[in-house]
Amino acid sequence: MSLLEQIEFPADLRKLSIEQLPQVCKELRDFIIDESSRNPGHFGASLGTVELTVALHYAFNTPEDRLIWDVGHQAYGHKILTGRKKNFDTNRKFGGLSGFPNPQESNYDSFVAGHASISISAATGMAIAAKAKGENRQIVAIIGDGALTGGEAFEALDYAGGSKANILVILNDNDMAIDANVGGLHQYLIDVITSPSYNRFRDKTWNFSTKLSQFGPDLRELFKKMGRGLKSLFFKESNLFESLGFRYFGPIDGHNVFQLTRTLQDIQHIPGPKILHIHTQKGKGFKPAEEEQTEWHAPRKFDKETGEMIPLPDKNTIPPKYQEVFGETLLELAQKDERVMGVTPAMATGCSMNILMKKMPNRAFDVGIAEQHAVTMSAGMAKEGLIPFCNIYSTFMQRAYDQVIHDVALQNLHVVFCLDRAGLVGADGVTHHGLFDIPYMRAIPNMIVAAPMNEIELRNMMFTAYSTPQPFAIRYPRGNGEYLQWHSEMQLMEIGKAEQLRSGEKVAVLTIGTVGNTAMKAVDKVYTETGKMAALFNFRWVKPIDSETIKTIAQSFETIITIEDGLIAGGFGSAVLEELESTNFAGTVVRLGVHDEFVPHGTQQELYKICGFDFDSIVQQIETSIK
Amino acid sequence: MSLLEQIEFPADLRKLSIEQLPQVCKELRDFIIDESSRNPGHFGASLGTVELTVALHYAFNTPEDRLIWDVGHQAYGHKILTGRKKNFDTNRKFGGLSGFPNPQESNYDSFVAGHASISISAATGMAIAAKAKGENRQIVAIIGDGALTGGEAFEALDYAGGSKANILVILNDNDMAIDANVGGLHQYLIDVITSPSYNRFRDKTWNFSTKLSQFGPDLRELFKKMGRGLKSLFFKESNLFESLGFRYFGPIDGHNVFQLTRTLQDIQHIPGPKILHIHTQKGKGFKPAEEEQTEWHAPRKFDKETGEMIPLPDKNTIPPKYQEVFGETLLELAQKDERVMGVTPAMATGCSMNILMKKMPNRAFDVGIAEQHAVTMSAGMAKEGLIPFCNIYSTFMQRAYDQVIHDVALQNLHVVFCLDRAGLVGADGVTHHGLFDIPYMRAIPNMIVAAPMNEIELRNMMFTAYSTPQPFAIRYPRGNGEYLQWHSEMQLMEIGKAEQLRSGEKVAVLTIGTVGNTAMKAVDKVYTETGKMAALFNFRWVKPIDSETIKTIAQSFETIITIEDGLIAGGFGSAVLEELESTNFAGTVVRLGVHDEFVPHGTQQELYKICGFDFDSIVQQIETSIK
Repeated sequence: MSLLEQIEFPADLRKLSIEQLPQVCKELRDFIIDESSRNPGHFGASLGTVELTVALHYAFNTPEDRLIWDVGHQAYGHKILTGRKKNFDTNRKFGGLSGFPNPQESNYDSFVAGHASISISAATGMAIAAKAKGENRQIVAIIGDGALTGGEAFEALDYAGGSKANILVILNDNDMAIDANVGGLHQYLIDVITSPSYNRFRDKTWNFSTKLSQFGPDLRELFKKMGRGLKSLFFKESNLFESLGFRYFGPIDGHNVFQLTRTLQDIQHIPGPKILHIHTQKGKGFKPAEEEQTEWHAPRKFDKETGEMIPLPDKNTIPPKYQEVFGETLLELAQKDERVMGVTPAMATGCSMNILMKKMPNRAFDVGIAEQHAVTMSAGMAKEGLIPFCNIYSTFMQRAYDQVIHDVALQNLHVVFCLDRAGLVGADGVTHHGLFDIPYMRAIPNMIVAAPMNEIELRNMMFTAYSTPQPFAIRYPRGNGEYLQWHSEMQLMEIGKAEQLRSGEKVAVLTIGTVGNTAMKAVDKVYTETGKMAALFNFRWVKPIDSETIKTIAQSFETIITIEDGLIAGGFGSAVLEELESTNFAGTVVRLGVHDEFVPHGTQQELYKICGFDFDSIVQQIETSIK
Repeated sequence: MSLLEQIEFPADLRKLSIEQLPQVCKELRDFIIDESSRNPGHFGASLGTVELTVALHYAFNTPEDRLIWDVGHQAYGHKILTGRKKNFDTNRKFGGLSGFPNPQESNYDSFVAGHASISISAATGMAIAAKAKGENRQIVAIIGDGALTGGEAFEALDYAGGSKANILVILNDNDMAIDANVGGLHQYLIDVITSPSYNRFRDKTWNFSTKLSQFGPDLRELFKKMGRGLKSLFFKESNLFESLGFRYFGPIDGHNVFQLTRTLQDIQHIPGPKILHIHTQKGKGFKPAEEEQTEWHAPRKFDKETGEMIPLPDKNTIPPKYQEVFGETLLELAQKDERVMGVTPAMATGCSMNILMKKMPNRAFDVGIAEQHAVTMSAGMAKEGLIPFCNIYSTFMQRAYDQVIHDVALQNLHVVFCLDRAGLVGADGVTHHGLFDIPYMRAIPNMIVAAPMNEIELRNMMFTAYSTPQPFAIRYPRGNGEYLQWHSEMQLMEIGKAEQLRSGEKVAVLTIGTVGNTAMKAVDKVYTETGKMAALFNFRWVKPIDSETIKTIAQSFETIITIEDGLIAGGFGSAVLEELESTNFAGTVVRLGVHDEFVPHGTQQELYKICGFDFDSIVQQIETSIK
């Protein structure tokens, strides 16, 4: 029986001797590789944190002690060690485990994860609660170097450092751009800094300087700073954190489970805010993933022996992804006009801005996980006459809502927001769906809000946005488009003008975005089955909305069905209702979309179904209304 | 003729000799004191930046060089020196100058100001544009130590430092909590660090260490760091900025106009990201303001000779401010239940959380300008069983929209959001109106959205929120309530239940929030004038909305008038329309509120009028509909 088989919960792990931990790590890593090869997920990050995960659950009394995983890509090992090994094969599947830590799933998941840079804030709040309630527990936030660039992480470091909150931040530094060579001197120094002798030395320095106070406060102050200066000779990183009031430990090798465990055991009893800096390697222990980290961040199914991924379908046989169309179109626009620029906060590969970045490196700016900065920087560029295309996933654009209003819309600047992964995203689930953008964007004065039905419209909308000097938002989903031949000449569109796709009677179906394609098939199906044809309108523009067409529809139909891949409270259907008020429409409006609830994970099709706007639901709704 | 009289634009200032600048500063300061004594505004901050303003416009070629004032409280001197001296008496008045820099008002205002922490991001974008367009200009962001705690400022420092953007950040450090004693050693050292001799010394160290490279890279690396370490012996502040890639200068005395001017002239030609740290005193040059900085941040009218402010009206003769009611009620709840806590990002005085803070200092947390952290920290507290009341002005809650969704609502946590200054705020104007909260909050699953009609309802809603373990948002305006006797026993309210205030016929008026009081008077006026009574409903809850009452209204009235102090796209009226769809209502709905536009500054009454929901407009609308 393997060690991993004996571990269902961390209490089982803690029964083992420390000498057995490397074997646990090996088995856990093999388990993750084996499972991920068959059921794709976030792979690289979780391989990188195997030793950390084992050390944390060994050194801390989870779940009484709290672990808060930032983002949560790295938490597969944590899930497997905390009661979810047996059903880990349901990971990211509808009805199965969430791909991210989720308190509703397990009390070992202390806080929600998915969006970056929140863990230190949450830990600080928990530390305040523990203190208020007299509960003596450890609270640990685990955050990657990427997530640390998000402004909230800094706000939290600043506050926690000043407030002396009793938390431990583990900085999981796996950025290969930062020198990973942590042997030799570094190794020696972490031993020094955590050892009693180093601390005795520091204390002595301090006592000595106290004697100097007879020469005035300046001299003592100078020596006090020398303690910090001494360390900063060696630790570039220590400056930042220590100047914010944290005690800094590290960097240490995040794949040495002994050292990790002992360090965690040592420092957990030091009160106040602490940071432990560890170096890890994304994809650790699986050669291909170590070498190609971006590709193996979340790979497709693969052969775990050879490292070969299942081949992608032939590009010539399926329509392109919207992401690819965005990326190629942006490149074309940039080649056409030197004012066109790309800006994205750490989504260059995901949104395909890497196409522009590769061909014209001076024209695309990846600012790291920093949505707020991305938007205001775009505003600054636009204020001086450039035309930035700022690509942010819909769910992450929530991070920069104020900047969209205050820095862009208020100044009526020519920034084009491309909201990738709008609507239900599928397996990433509840934290990643882009469901709020229609309500929150259409409330903003000066803002144009558009959603293409297909990739040709995406191109044309990008061209129209390029040609229209005001704030412009284009939302489009994750996934593939409609046409093999999508690479048409870009056309200027009439802003605010809907397109009628089917003529019909009694029922008018009004759609926004790619759900129009499903609706078209549904309208045709109903016609085939019943001989009755509903009218179909691809609205294209949420704002300005086509009030003329709505007036015409109001005069001719009994039922209006609106469909949107987003929350309906204040959404597209609501905008239609607002327009209908100035007509004499006395019929019925049925609004399909996401009702007032958070939606779990699954395939996009599964989720459309539970939300009631998949193909079958739309057919059914039309048939009910057209009778 | 005074010097100031000769200056209409900075070009006039630049004709003077540097020796004349102290006199300009004196006159400018007197001008600000004189104007502000008669026409209240943001006073203390602008007095603190008199010398900086003069030095900036003297050393830089504005408006060709760009000045970006963060927040903008401190920019009165800037406005006066840039063509707006003659109409400065219209400051903050309807149709007059904006209280903040505003590019629509002057091309010397390079970027919008009002919300904090954006200036470095904007400057970085402008630097990218200048480089792309081959324009050789200086770009200067002026940011206070308060605004620097906002996460976006860190995102921008991190990015600008890494990207080597050619910007100058001026850190205007006026926090008295930080030792302001900048004489002696500090003074000496700034001279050292900007002097050629210091830089020669540093270069020598470097060249010496190059020779050491024969002993291996580690030793050279060690010496490289020693350069930084040397400085960090003296500059606590330098660590943070230099580790992010900025060249750091300072701190210097921000009231020494000679030194400021010379330093700005010296460092502006050093390429790359630079930070100049200056110490200033808020209220400088006006004794009472120097001594009581919070009180004089934005004082009432005052006697400039004696420093006496015009007396406040007697507390017993006018109803309290909503802010005071919030503050006292929070204290009562905190006294009643030890789980109740207050959290606010730098709005403790403005929202009156200072009442709790003073009486129970361990129960209230001011986290500084850090809305995102405030919300997630509240979520962490709630996750562990506390009941945080998180008070953030409506306009600033836009900063933490993602955290409200992802960290609070998704986990269905018991956080009470108190959205102070919701609706039109008056003189602060376009950047500060709280107009978006109804659309953006009501889209969020699990969230309750409420707005009290008066201060007794505010108390009862806070009590109801305290008693209801889920996310809860209460929006209420800036300004005074309705009752002298407001301090009633707190009552549990029925969530989602509207209150009928007037019975009537033909027309039903549905209001949310304090505009209900105006509507009540309007309904009564119409009755007096025409003998016809409209029905009036105080809806109290935007979400869940009272669908039963809406059904009843739909059956009995011909016209429904909704009124809200906010944007109507997706707002309260829109929520009413959504509910009406499941009724057979065939009448008319008129939605009053802010239409699709940004609203300027003025008194609240002036703004209600231009937006069409002041008393007269409501009377007129009811009369038109009830005929």
